[in-house]
Amino acid sequence: MQVCRTIGEIKEFANKARVAGKTVGLVPTMGYFHEGHLNLMREAKKNCDVVVVSLYVNPIQFGPKEDLGEYPRDFDRDCTMARSVGVDAIFAPGNDEMYPPGYNSFVEVAGITNKLCGLSRPGHFRGVTTVVAKLFNIVKPDRAFFGQKDAQQAMVIEKMVRDLNMGLEVVTLPIVREADGLAMSSRNVYLSAEQRQAAPVLYRSLCAFRDAVAGGERDVQKLCRGIEEMILSTPGAQIDYVEILSVPDLEPLNTMTGRCIAALAVRFGKTRLIDNIVVEV
Amino acid sequence: MQVCRTIGEIKEFANKARVAGKTVGLVPTMGYFHEGHLNLMREAKKNCDVVVVSLYVNPIQFGPKEDLGEYPRDFDRDCTMARSVGVDAIFAPGNDEMYPPGYNSFVEVAGITNKLCGLSRPGHFRGVTTVVAKLFNIVKPDRAFFGQKDAQQAMVIEKMVRDLNMGLEVVTLPIVREADGLAMSSRNVYLSAEQRQAAPVLYRSLCAFRDAVAGGERDVQKLCRGIEEMILSTPGAQIDYVEILSVPDLEPLNTMTGRCIAALAVRFGKTRLIDNIVVEV
Repeated sequence: MQVCRTIGEIKEFANKARVAGKTVGLVPTMGYFHEGHLNLMREAKKNCDVVVVSLYVNPIQFGPKEDLGEYPRDFDRDCTMARSVGVDAIFAPGNDEMYPPGYNSFVEVAGITNKLCGLSRPGHFRGVTTVVAKLFNIVKPDRAFFGQKDAQQAMVIEKMVRDLNMGLEVVTLPIVREADGLAMSSRNVYLSAEQRQAAPVLYRSLCAFRDAVAGGERDVQKLCRGIEEMILSTPGAQIDYVEILSVPDLEPLNTMTGRCIAALAVRFGKTRLIDNIVVEV
Repeated sequence: MQVCRTIGEIKEFANKARVAGKTVGLVPTMGYFHEGHLNLMREAKKNCDVVVVSLYVNPIQFGPKEDLGEYPRDFDRDCTMARSVGVDAIFAPGNDEMYPPGYNSFVEVAGITNKLCGLSRPGHFRGVTTVVAKLFNIVKPDRAFFGQKDAQQAMVIEKMVRDLNMGLEVVTLPIVREADGLAMSSRNVYLSAEQRQAAPVLYRSLCAFRDAVAGGERDVQKLCRGIEEMILSTPGAQIDYVEILSVPDLEPLNTMTGRCIAALAVRFGKTRLIDNIVVEV
């Protein structure tokens, strides 16, 4: 496995693969890998000849009061894990490599970024689409792999790719969960033992929502309240948002129809966790 | 010469060229060709195996009160002219092809777009960078050719390409002028006979500026006033802006140092013309 620190190195690596007629898969990450990341890498490996994993804690997708400084990092462990699933190259640039002095260009998807995490984290998706557009231009992958935990992110990136004619395939893979249902996230390490024990309520509330829909409930407000009540009954859980929206336009709904997503963001102390479930009515 | 109306067709055309090991040059235009455009095409032909010219009056770079509706168009004449200089393919998409319903993604360069034409035409450069990014993604050219008349546009695109790692070469070619010095522009056809006769004052004022600098004048305010006075002495000329800025950062200056651009936008009736000159001190 090759470790590239500069744009020039990874471009050369990906170029060589392309010239040799190989397909290239890209898994953009912020590192501190868990089973969710490894699942993306394995799937990339299955579907592409060469797999590049980018490992970069992208500062411009963090708000000024967010956890950029604390974001967990363990480069050596990440390299070992990536190697173990057959990743061919890691691209781990520094900030000066990605955003040299005077940097000032941005890619933005409007509309679907003005809700859910886009509302709680202004500028977040602009940071995401900008860094992902850069990574796509640098690596020129045939396919890029994202996790469904960041459901809105995956939709935003799919829209960016389609609107801007980026000509690659975006593959979104299901959420990987701990045994007790908690969605895997690098941020789970922030949780105290108590918070960790409480956090699976997020998934339980989404399962209860899914079951209620399966049982015939169609009233979005009522369903939303059901999720909220379940979460609020858990000590220490503070709701950032709970919303049920249409997929993929993320429009508000009164009645469950077609593909719908129930998405939530909840704080346990300073740690903000997200989760979601998509149901088809 | 192939005429492509869909993104699929031009992608296939450019792809075939690339697979055959040929270099691809792109000349993005809004059509209604003049010698300036032909010069870009000839230079592209000299430097690339295959030349694609895009011909698209991009609605999102026009403000609501601007001349989108009136912008001159003559597709058959444009095709004849492009063919005469050896262009290999014209890409002339419709609006639904470029911006299908629900379109909502944009590329933006901040900083250097907040001055000159960016001030007079809010949103203009966002429209330019978005359509050019799309064209780059569609055609994947090795080189793209722009004219120095739109000096700020060329700088903005160079910055976008560098910042977003687009990995192509931006070539900017000198302004082509009429015999009396007027910069060639598709918008010159809007001018009445009287306005057409008055318009060369723009270039004369820039030449006087250049001569004053050559003669030792370094006071930017004084030089600026010189240009303005010369233009205002011409009946019917209304100044939008006259500015002298650093190149390529477009920062304001007190004293002429290094590379500087004198750039102006002037209205004759409803017609807004731009021109510029770069000097090195």
